[in-house]
Amino acid sequence: MNRGGTLRGLGVGPGDPELVTLKALRHLEAAEVVAYFAKRGRPGHAWTVVASYLRGDQVEVRLEYPFTTEVPVSDARYPLAMGRFYDEAAERLAAHLEAGRDVAVLCEGDPFFYGSFMYLHDRLADRFPTDVVPGVTGMSGCWARAQTPITHGDDVLTVLPGTLPEAELARRLADTDAAVIMKVGRNLPAIRRALTQAGALDRAILVERGTMPGEHISLLSDEELEHRVPYFSIVLIPGRKGAR
Amino acid sequence: MNRGGTLRGLGVGPGDPELVTLKALRHLEAAEVVAYFAKRGRPGHAWTVVASYLRGDQVEVRLEYPFTTEVPVSDARYPLAMGRFYDEAAERLAAHLEAGRDVAVLCEGDPFFYGSFMYLHDRLADRFPTDVVPGVTGMSGCWARAQTPITHGDDVLTVLPGTLPEAELARRLADTDAAVIMKVGRNLPAIRRALTQAGALDRAILVERGTMPGEHISLLSDEELEHRVPYFSIVLIPGRKGAR
Ligand SMILES: C[S@@+](CC[C@H](N)C(=O)[O-])C[C@H]1O[C@@H](n2cnc3c(N)ncnc32)[C@H](O)[C@@H]1O
Ligand SMILES: C[S@@+](CC[C@H](N)C(=O)[O-])C[C@H]1O[C@@H](n2cnc3c(N)ncnc32)[C@H](O)[C@@H]1O
Repeated sequence: MNRGGTLRGLGVGPGDPELVTLKALRHLEAAEVVAYFAKRGRPGHAWTVVASYLRGDQVEVRLEYPFTTEVPVSDARYPLAMGRFYDEAAERLAAHLEAGRDVAVLCEGDPFFYGSFMYLHDRLADRFPTDVVPGVTGMSGCWARAQTPITHGDDVLTVLPGTLPEAELARRLADTDAAVIMKVGRNLPAIRRALTQAGALDRAILVERGTMPGEHISLLSDEELEHRVPYFSIVLIPGRKGAR
Repeated sequence: MNRGGTLRGLGVGPGDPELVTLKALRHLEAAEVVAYFAKRGRPGHAWTVVASYLRGDQVEVRLEYPFTTEVPVSDARYPLAMGRFYDEAAERLAAHLEAGRDVAVLCEGDPFFYGSFMYLHDRLADRFPTDVVPGVTGMSGCWARAQTPITHGDDVLTVLPGTLPEAELARRLADTDAAVIMKVGRNLPAIRRALTQAGALDRAILVERGTMPGEHISLLSDEELEHRVPYFSIVLIPGRKGAR
């Protein structure tokens, strides 16, 4: 019986090609089909990270997001268009899997941590053998570069998408020891206000393009109010307990 | 001027030796001194993970915890004895660093995420050049093996040490989309009660020794009340939002 190829999500880490695991590298080199997400007109970030490891004779499947800029999840068009996009992407991979070809999906950071791979997994995991190779998350790469231990002892860590309402961000920031704010982008002004309200602005570290070319690390309170950040930006609030 | 050797925390990942990064492997192979924490009478977990990569001619520094069983952080003896232990460990490494030797400290998972390395970093970072190589965390290894996407879209993730008071665990579990409970061990009965109170027991996945020999994955609600877990055990509560 032909069970079909295996769908495999490969975490490629935060950006530095050396932060790929031995396991991801082995599966990357062995895969017949390599798929990756990309924004229109861009090379695909996870693809860029591992480009130097690709054999050159592998089938590449580029999955291009339908929006050129980030559309907020609250936008009415968003869930519909994205659902259709992931349906189509899943069918393109299913055709290879049905033909018995293994498909490696390149994933920024860790595949199951706020990753697009999960939407393919949701659609294909009960039709084909599926495997996930975990990766170093963006946040781990960022706190390593910032030389900032994030959690000691019995610190609570809260990971917050910067897309949450400002009041909710402020409430949760006030009720945790350590925090990481992902998906910063255009939400930075609201994030800054929420941090101020929670009394955590002075501890907040901004990491732009952590472990990548163009990396920039600063205290958020030192940045101009109008400071604009790239897509790969994160805010770290280190824990306070347990040190020494 | 002799700036001394470099102190480097190397994340070795969740347990599977193939989940080491290329960068950690390179620095491991190059280090003159390799240090690692170990419990009395045990080989040292991070050491075991990378044992097959060690050159054989490197100086090994075993840092042995003063307690044979886990002592709760609330115990009065704990902070004092641990503080003294980390002071002494830091001085042993400082001697090598002063002599100009690079020291690699092997760290389970990621060095800055609830890791003992942080206590060495706290003591040595302003005396010697310091570097951290991030690693795949235990939780990423566990949710990959459990085939469980942890966070979609704008899910909030809360990481909780199982050592927290039961009422605090229950309150925080009721107020998050996704959660990870670390340091399960002897706290499992309290964790189970807190999950029940928060209405999250039916979604809770228990991963014992994720990615290691003897791995066991189950629904926590399927386990006997008396079920005892090893040190490397984690509870995952996947997020509910954003799927599809
Ligand atoms: C859709 S999430 C994907 C997360 C990824 N799966 C991971 O494990 O890190 C994208 C967000 O991750 C954060 N991020 C990931 N890598 C980063 C890096 N190298 N530097 C700064 N931020 C990063 C940013 O906040 C970005 O908006
Ligand atoms: C002191 S913390 C160290 C965490 C580590 N620095 C990391 O990045 O995962 C130890 C706890 O991590 C969790 N853990 C780490 N690796 C694990 C694994 N492979 N399987 C299950 N639990 C793990 C357990 O809850 C354990 O009590």
